[in-house]
Amino acid sequence: MKTIKVGLIGTGYIGLVHLEMLRRLGGVEVVAVADTNGDLARAAAGKFGIGRVYENAGALIADPEVEVVHDCAPNNVHFDINAQAIRAGKELLSEKPLALDSHESAELLELAQKHGTLTAIDFCYRYYPVVQEAAARAKRGDLGEVRAFMGHFLQDWLFFETDYTWRLDPEVAGQANVVADLGSHWFDLVQFITGQKIVEVMAELHTCLPKRRKPKAGPLSFGGGQTGDSEEVAITLDDYASIFLKLENGARGNFTTCQAAAGRKVDLEIQVFGSKESYAWSHVHPNALWIGHRERANEVFYESSQLQTVETRKYAILPTGHPLGYHDAMFNLFRDYYEALAAKRAGKPTKATFPDFRTGHEMMCIIDAAVRSDKSGAWVKVGK
Amino acid sequence: MKTIKVGLIGTGYIGLVHLEMLRRLGGVEVVAVADTNGDLARAAAGKFGIGRVYENAGALIADPEVEVVHDCAPNNVHFDINAQAIRAGKELLSEKPLALDSHESAELLELAQKHGTLTAIDFCYRYYPVVQEAAARAKRGDLGEVRAFMGHFLQDWLFFETDYTWRLDPEVAGQANVVADLGSHWFDLVQFITGQKIVEVMAELHTCLPKRRKPKAGPLSFGGGQTGDSEEVAITLDDYASIFLKLENGARGNFTTCQAAAGRKVDLEIQVFGSKESYAWSHVHPNALWIGHRERANEVFYESSQLQTVETRKYAILPTGHPLGYHDAMFNLFRDYYEALAAKRAGKPTKATFPDFRTGHEMMCIIDAAVRSDKSGAWVKVGK
Amino acid sequence: MKTIKVGLIGTGYIGLVHLEMLRRLGGVEVVAVADTNGDLARAAAGKFGIGRVYENAGALIADPEVEVVHDCAPNNVHFDINAQAIRAGKELLSEKPLALDSHESAELLELAQKHGTLTAIDFCYRYYPVVQEAAARAKRGDLGEVRAFMGHFLQDWLFFETDYTWRLDPEVAGQANVVADLGSHWFDLVQFITGQKIVEVMAELHTCLPKRRKPKAGPLSFGGGQTGDSEEVAITLDDYASIFLKLENGARGNFTTCQAAAGRKVDLEIQVFGSKESYAWSHVHPNALWIGHRERANEVFYESSQLQTVETRKYAILPTGHPLGYHDAMFNLFRDYYEALAAKRAGKPTKATFPDFRTGHEMMCIIDAAVRSDKSGAWVKVGK
Amino acid sequence: MKTIKVGLIGTGYIGLVHLEMLRRLGGVEVVAVADTNGDLARAAAGKFGIGRVYENAGALIADPEVEVVHDCAPNNVHFDINAQAIRAGKELLSEKPLALDSHESAELLELAQKHGTLTAIDFCYRYYPVVQEAAARAKRGDLGEVRAFMGHFLQDWLFFETDYTWRLDPEVAGQANVVADLGSHWFDLVQFITGQKIVEVMAELHTCLPKRRKPKAGPLSFGGGQTGDSEEVAITLDDYASIFLKLENGARGNFTTCQAAAGRKVDLEIQVFGSKESYAWSHVHPNALWIGHRERANEVFYESSQLQTVETRKYAILPTGHPLGYHDAMFNLFRDYYEALAAKRAGKPTKATFPDFRTGHEMMCIIDAAVRSDKSGAWVKVGK
Repeated sequence: MKTIKVGLIGTGYIGLVHLEMLRRLGGVEVVAVADTNGDLARAAAGKFGIGRVYENAGALIADPEVEVVHDCAPNNVHFDINAQAIRAGKELLSEKPLALDSHESAELLELAQKHGTLTAIDFCYRYYPVVQEAAARAKRGDLGEVRAFMGHFLQDWLFFETDYTWRLDPEVAGQANVVADLGSHWFDLVQFITGQKIVEVMAELHTCLPKRRKPKAGPLSFGGGQTGDSEEVAITLDDYASIFLKLENGARGNFTTCQAAAGRKVDLEIQVFGSKESYAWSHVHPNALWIGHRERANEVFYESSQLQTVETRKYAILPTGHPLGYHDAMFNLFRDYYEALAAKRAGKPTKATFPDFRTGHEMMCIIDAAVRSDKSGAWVKVGK
Repeated sequence: MKTIKVGLIGTGYIGLVHLEMLRRLGGVEVVAVADTNGDLARAAAGKFGIGRVYENAGALIADPEVEVVHDCAPNNVHFDINAQAIRAGKELLSEKPLALDSHESAELLELAQKHGTLTAIDFCYRYYPVVQEAAARAKRGDLGEVRAFMGHFLQDWLFFETDYTWRLDPEVAGQANVVADLGSHWFDLVQFITGQKIVEVMAELHTCLPKRRKPKAGPLSFGGGQTGDSEEVAITLDDYASIFLKLENGARGNFTTCQAAAGRKVDLEIQVFGSKESYAWSHVHPNALWIGHRERANEVFYESSQLQTVETRKYAILPTGHPLGYHDAMFNLFRDYYEALAAKRAGKPTKATFPDFRTGHEMMCIIDAAVRSDKSGAWVKVGK
Repeated sequence: MKTIKVGLIGTGYIGLVHLEMLRRLGGVEVVAVADTNGDLARAAAGKFGIGRVYENAGALIADPEVEVVHDCAPNNVHFDINAQAIRAGKELLSEKPLALDSHESAELLELAQKHGTLTAIDFCYRYYPVVQEAAARAKRGDLGEVRAFMGHFLQDWLFFETDYTWRLDPEVAGQANVVADLGSHWFDLVQFITGQKIVEVMAELHTCLPKRRKPKAGPLSFGGGQTGDSEEVAITLDDYASIFLKLENGARGNFTTCQAAAGRKVDLEIQVFGSKESYAWSHVHPNALWIGHRERANEVFYESSQLQTVETRKYAILPTGHPLGYHDAMFNLFRDYYEALAAKRAGKPTKATFPDFRTGHEMMCIIDAAVRSDKSGAWVKVGK
Repeated sequence: MKTIKVGLIGTGYIGLVHLEMLRRLGGVEVVAVADTNGDLARAAAGKFGIGRVYENAGALIADPEVEVVHDCAPNNVHFDINAQAIRAGKELLSEKPLALDSHESAELLELAQKHGTLTAIDFCYRYYPVVQEAAARAKRGDLGEVRAFMGHFLQDWLFFETDYTWRLDPEVAGQANVVADLGSHWFDLVQFITGQKIVEVMAELHTCLPKRRKPKAGPLSFGGGQTGDSEEVAITLDDYASIFLKLENGARGNFTTCQAAAGRKVDLEIQVFGSKESYAWSHVHPNALWIGHRERANEVFYESSQLQTVETRKYAILPTGHPLGYHDAMFNLFRDYYEALAAKRAGKPTKATFPDFRTGHEMMCIIDAAVRSDKSGAWVKVGK
């Protein structure tokens, strides 16, 4: 099999995770990295023996050897990089969000369709084996008709007034913070598991901490704390959001997200209630799926390369009962994407289930609707 | 200590639980029971050696030996019985809800205040030892300022179309089903733990199963199933509800309730996020309180007559680590009520924390606001 | 139904729990209490309106109105009281252990058989609804042949050197501490769930804290701490024990118990592995039974008055999903005993599954064998 | 940094996991693979672009470019391959067990010391972040003196009579099955967390399924089931074992292992009770450490690159709360090993905590002692 050549843009934390997971794949080679911080890019290239380093995205995209671009740059340049890469004829795997609003994401989707790009977006939570299992069971009818769903995504890295991030700055992050950053992952899970689109929302965006200390030396991420000088700034974006949702079939849902919930780290939970059974999944113990029944004992299904339905066994990479983690979820997504790419190259059909730019655009539409609903205090239909 | 004489109205399931828990108390004697179903009343009296049996509530209330009335009758006669008992100068412990709407509950509250009645209402979930502990810690400042709260109350006894209950019939149940029946317990916990009132709500009431089979032989309770003849009826009341809530201090909350969630039996969960720490409690494992922290390990506090704060140890009745259950929660409430009553009789002050008719009225106001919000699709302030 | 008259000896903590749970029963009346501490006995009698108070056990046993004796006295007088009660023709429910060694318990068993006494012993852990469920499923064949079993019983109330109890004094407690006090409960569960007798053991008794501070004012219980004067004493009895066990059918088991395990309060856990499925139960979350499968998802069975097998539903007293606690387990045992007693009085056969003096004697035999095994360092057969 | 060149022997399941995890490291390149099944080796080489393929271990060891050998061959050739690699001057990371008995492992240890080989053995469970955390806390004194420890390692892949593996054949597997295969992992955790050596054991090895169906087409692994012809064979090796253990300081422990426990997949659990606090860890939810206290609430510590002690944060690779899995544990071990190797090459001291051939030998000594104890029915001291 001919090796596929990859170029990766953005060698911060998430870019490095991409690099490690790309290296676990066979048949894929990262040939170039780019970062506006050249030292960061050179360190990553040195660590993994990557041949070429660029200090801007455009140069990497122009590299003729690069077939696939991984866009791990900051959110506010996603649109430009993604558009450039598509126009340059590259295949494209982008970090989320696709862009800053649904107008941009619509444009990207259209562009990708026009160029026949094989796109993917990194909504990796759906790639835990038992999340795949829930979706597969729902699809074959075990769940019955979905009636209701609920859940939350809670973190605490913005718990203190001294916690600050560029995500709270509307100039950089756009119109929403937590409902976009965390909400989009949850909305993707809802659509993936139920097989239904979210069509209407009623949202309340709220700021628990209306004042914060912003470090003068630049924003931080993931609760690293701060020691240097800081200034008080007013916060207008949401660090809490609650949303009612409706699916195509009329099923109701309810979601809460907050980044100031002490003790909750990456606490994503989803419950889906169908007319035949129920599912519940928590990212805190990500290898267990709860299956609820009215007339018999509930089940706890632990990921298993033997007991899962045939089509989802491949995501339970290890022998039954060996726990998988976040890295493996991302690896599973990458593997699906590169298998689909190999199929495309070979002119074969592919039935991939990975999230693509249509998914990314749908998430932007939901977020846009949530922001409008919060402003109007009324239900808002999700655009397309 | 002089024995207090009790009369109990309504000898169905919950009435029998009252009887058992009353008998665990010292200094209290049930001297009379009443039920319109005389056989039921006689069976209860026979079982526990209770001297007098009435076939209507009024006769029991008129019994001069009865000092305290326990109102365990069906919801739609709560108002009448409670009003009669107050007017007759009895002390009064009522099952929830206090009445069918907030106008009635306001009237009862006023009446009880006028007569100086010592009232209680059976919101017993707050009487699990670690729920008391959470409230005590919040009160002394451990929680800090409450910022957000969330939770759910899920059941599955109305999961099938063949499940039917009088609670779904607006003629009997009034304007709401699940948001009233289950929501009220949760709202009470919110106010009890945070020490704040719920002042505004945005609600959506929804009917997952718009058609059900109603047994011709009369309604059933708690998923007992049905075997006889039935007819299809249209359901208009809610079997699902989601609610955004605001507290006095501006804190936001979100709640979901559903009675068609396969596998969830009595699954009440509440999470409260403060500016210093967080609490989470689930009725499924009711003796453990989760305490969340940003900067150190989270804690799991198991009920303990030694480790709880001094004022809540009395609710952890057994040596540390012996699990308590639903019966014990109700017992704890009764004990507090009768201690307060003994204090009242002795002319002593009492600092009881049991829910009273003011609590009951507040819950009715929240439910009324939720129903109005659902109709208007907008936020509604909670009345007083 | 004629009321059964009960006399209770020993009005300490466990005696009071007996009194409360007896009062929850219908058709049973406590007519007398006895305690060598007369003040304690009078307080209990006053609280519950009990007519007669004795300051010694013999006087209560001689009371002609007393039909049933509850023996809640200290361990070292169990033998004498139980023997007296049997000889006086009383029915008898004794706290565990039956006596101080298996010679005494054999004598009691023989005596009871001779007098036709209806005996019971308070191994109440088997009366949690899902423990009953596990036993019922095993009995009907779901478990298959039992192959192996394991578990532990951990506490921490003897964690500090300043924790002291009479149970550590061989003059009062006999030849063993924790293996007797906690082990016996676990051994009873093994036999109850598997339906097999323990026939051989290999044990190691160990003292984690060989020196303790004994309060001069008298021993304490349940980790209450001590403030007064104390003296250092050498401890020879076990506060840790581990035991290999064999059942009649050759199945192997392993058990650990310790009272110095920080953070473990009443942490009893048992797992049974059969040729068809597995069971696991933990007293920390006592309403859930884990059922393990090789070829399909594991189950978590929550106590349910609807979903349990027909013969065990009566132990799930409340509607499905309302958690039961320690009090309810004891209540369930008492109810079974008094139903059997009513049947006996009525000359009807009874198929009771409550633990009786045969059970109590079997536990003493296992403990004796464990002590001998520890001394010899070899496997020892359990006597009969 | 100069790239380190690796050769890997044995391209079965575990060899492929090694290859993936080696590729996540920077500065390491796999230049050759070997397997007696040449097709398997060529497939692995093709997948990851590895240059040279050998059909026997000796040829790979003789490859002058290979600096480090990963020995992933079957157990019964571990000794030969490890000895050869050491003699050839290679650095060496071996799968467990080191050899088939403690005589062989002693020889390997001596040989490695003589040649100054940097050795490692793949006891990777200790590399979950919170296991490292438990050990670090114990080391700095938080645990106090260890008093007792317990745990189990349960699987179900040998549950059916139709499950068969070469591990049950003494010709291939040596003198023990489960106590060696699973026990060794658990013993390593005990020594790693407590910092104490296991010095004496009392063991019982047992065969739950004394007859099995052996497939004529060759043994299978991990419960894959079988469809072809089979023959009945008598099983003499253990599929269940229980062991009492003593540490250097006299602390007692107890362990159970079984491969026929329906529903238990890779269920390793360890509890350690110290004089100051307790730890419990389960591989089923491997990112949470339970910390038990007598006088305050217990803690649940979730892996965290921020909250762990400074020296263990590097093992919590992702931002706080992103779950890690089995792959990450192995990756952590490899990274430590290759960092130590880089330090060795640079002539720098290293304070690595990875398990090495001394560890591997110690495990063989414990297993040998367990086998002898089972035969004698008495306590046996662990050799050195």
